[in-house]
Amino acid sequence: MKRTITHLADGRELIYFDQRDDADRSAIDRRTLDPRPVASELRYDPLTEEWIAIAGHRQTRTFLPPADECPLCPSTDTRLSEIPAHDYDVVVFENRFPSFSGNFGTYEEVGGLSEVRPGVGRCEVVCFTSDHDSSFSRLSDAQVELVMEAWADRTAELSGIEGVEQVFIFENRGAEIGITLPHPHGQIYAYPYITPRTRLHLAAAEKRPTLFADVLAAERAAGTRVVASNDLWTAFVPAAARWPFEVHVYPHRQVPDLAALSEAERAAFAPLYTSVLRALDGLFGVAMPYIAAWHQAPVRQRRELGYLHLELFSIRRAPGKLKYLAGSESAMGAFVNDVLPEEAARMLRSQVDH
Amino acid sequence: MKRTITHLADGRELIYFDQRDDADRSAIDRRTLDPRPVASELRYDPLTEEWIAIAGHRQTRTFLPPADECPLCPSTDTRLSEIPAHDYDVVVFENRFPSFSGNFGTYEEVGGLSEVRPGVGRCEVVCFTSDHDSSFSRLSDAQVELVMEAWADRTAELSGIEGVEQVFIFENRGAEIGITLPHPHGQIYAYPYITPRTRLHLAAAEKRPTLFADVLAAERAAGTRVVASNDLWTAFVPAAARWPFEVHVYPHRQVPDLAALSEAERAAFAPLYTSVLRALDGLFGVAMPYIAAWHQAPVRQRRELGYLHLELFSIRRAPGKLKYLAGSESAMGAFVNDVLPEEAARMLRSQVDH
Repeated sequence: MKRTITHLADGRELIYFDQRDDADRSAIDRRTLDPRPVASELRYDPLTEEWIAIAGHRQTRTFLPPADECPLCPSTDTRLSEIPAHDYDVVVFENRFPSFSGNFGTYEEVGGLSEVRPGVGRCEVVCFTSDHDSSFSRLSDAQVELVMEAWADRTAELSGIEGVEQVFIFENRGAEIGITLPHPHGQIYAYPYITPRTRLHLAAAEKRPTLFADVLAAERAAGTRVVASNDLWTAFVPAAARWPFEVHVYPHRQVPDLAALSEAERAAFAPLYTSVLRALDGLFGVAMPYIAAWHQAPVRQRRELGYLHLELFSIRRAPGKLKYLAGSESAMGAFVNDVLPEEAARMLRSQVDH
Repeated sequence: MKRTITHLADGRELIYFDQRDDADRSAIDRRTLDPRPVASELRYDPLTEEWIAIAGHRQTRTFLPPADECPLCPSTDTRLSEIPAHDYDVVVFENRFPSFSGNFGTYEEVGGLSEVRPGVGRCEVVCFTSDHDSSFSRLSDAQVELVMEAWADRTAELSGIEGVEQVFIFENRGAEIGITLPHPHGQIYAYPYITPRTRLHLAAAEKRPTLFADVLAAERAAGTRVVASNDLWTAFVPAAARWPFEVHVYPHRQVPDLAALSEAERAAFAPLYTSVLRALDGLFGVAMPYIAAWHQAPVRQRRELGYLHLELFSIRRAPGKLKYLAGSESAMGAFVNDVLPEEAARMLRSQVDH
């Protein structure tokens, strides 16, 4: 494995992760790029005690360009993309339109009982493969392990940035959930606060420090919602699933984040996870839109309560039918799920066995 | 004003609210309907300490039928809808596919550390007008006041159901957010728990009992985000808006719910609110998808902390561009808003004046 740090024309970092130690990473970004936008501002919502990032500059970001202008494909002699090299295995670079960064502007008080502070942090893009038409589900085990190497590296690196409180690694897949670039890629948000969902997890775990391990044990004991498992990982539909098809993937050992996984755990995750993703795509015979979210322990506090796990969910509830977040979910946070979790698990299991 | 309670063929209640006291409401539902489905089950998510409603029966609900089969239009001699009468002003009826109801099934333990209980409560549909092609924004002040009469009536009525903890009145508008019926209508959910968003509001208000009044006063003082106001109501974009176009509408007097509004307050709300809705539609010259959510005090506890207000938001951020809830919002609850609230307010104000 070879890791090479380079910089793009506007100063952003780009890091190659290569399977081969002799990969040539000398290519230079020959584009002329506008200066990087300033970080968004964070505004405090006094009614919910949550921070909201206001990122006006993102309105102009690239939106579904034609495939031959994909900014995540390698550059060619005639077309310059975000990746200067003519090929790559896995590449990570700073988002051109980041919600969080170290590039501050000035942020004035706005009134309305809201505090304002700069959106410290970092946003990165992770390209899983140079193959524009592939998907995570079709990566080889070796490719997945290289992606995990990159995730672990970035988790450790971004955790060291002053002001970062949480590192969130995720993949949005499918136009149905608004992805702007179809090339197989994920993202990393290094937040300057602990996110609302993680705050809930921590509050629950504070009352019951073995919470996540207990949930895993109970799901394994019940068995009815287990989708796939091996010696080191279990994938299950949670009993109180919010989404029509939702799968949580837990390592059997409690670790705070991806950087803490052993080599054996990484190796065991790869085939299990891609089989679950293929099962998802197999359900209705169409590429399923999904969000895959790695829950990691916060960077600075209560790390001992965190339990690394992946939460994967799709908004497709049937062929031709999507789950929309309407009034109950979007305004009140109250979820109504139209698919019985045990039935979702049975459907997914039958595809995994398939 | 005349209020007439009737029943549909499957036993559901239907209530007419008429401006004229001599409206004839003797029409009978002549359809043959399947028995009503049982209430969903509630499952407790131990990781977030929230209840999720699992409603498998809703998978088969009516989905965007052709306009000439609209179940919310009045019945005609040849086509029978949900409303037996040949005309109506405002009509409310129990949802045929409710997430919550008093019609329980049996609910078995499911394991996985999740508790299960029946989805006690009630879900109602509120038809704002018999005119299929109208919208809330085009209702006359008298029509809005009749809708508010119905909302107040239903709030009081549903608050009296045993087990109901919160009454949520809302409108989902636009195919972009997944509405299944374009006929102008809203919904009411009487939940058997306090919703996650309301729990946050109450937790914040417990620390600062004048929280909502303080926010209103601060927004009126700042002025930069006020969209419209009159003697009794103010509409403003919150400083920490989550959505591209979000407007909160507060009465100047703290009341717990719609039933507690005075006649003068109802009368003053009507023209203010429809002018805001028309401003929203005027932004890009297209009918804007939106969610309009009435936040009312919980039914049984901490009512003194609640402050009735409406939160209206759209997912459209520009012509041809929607705000999708992807990884950061859907998985972590961390919102990134691409539109500066002061700019959104300025745009809306210019349409209100227009």
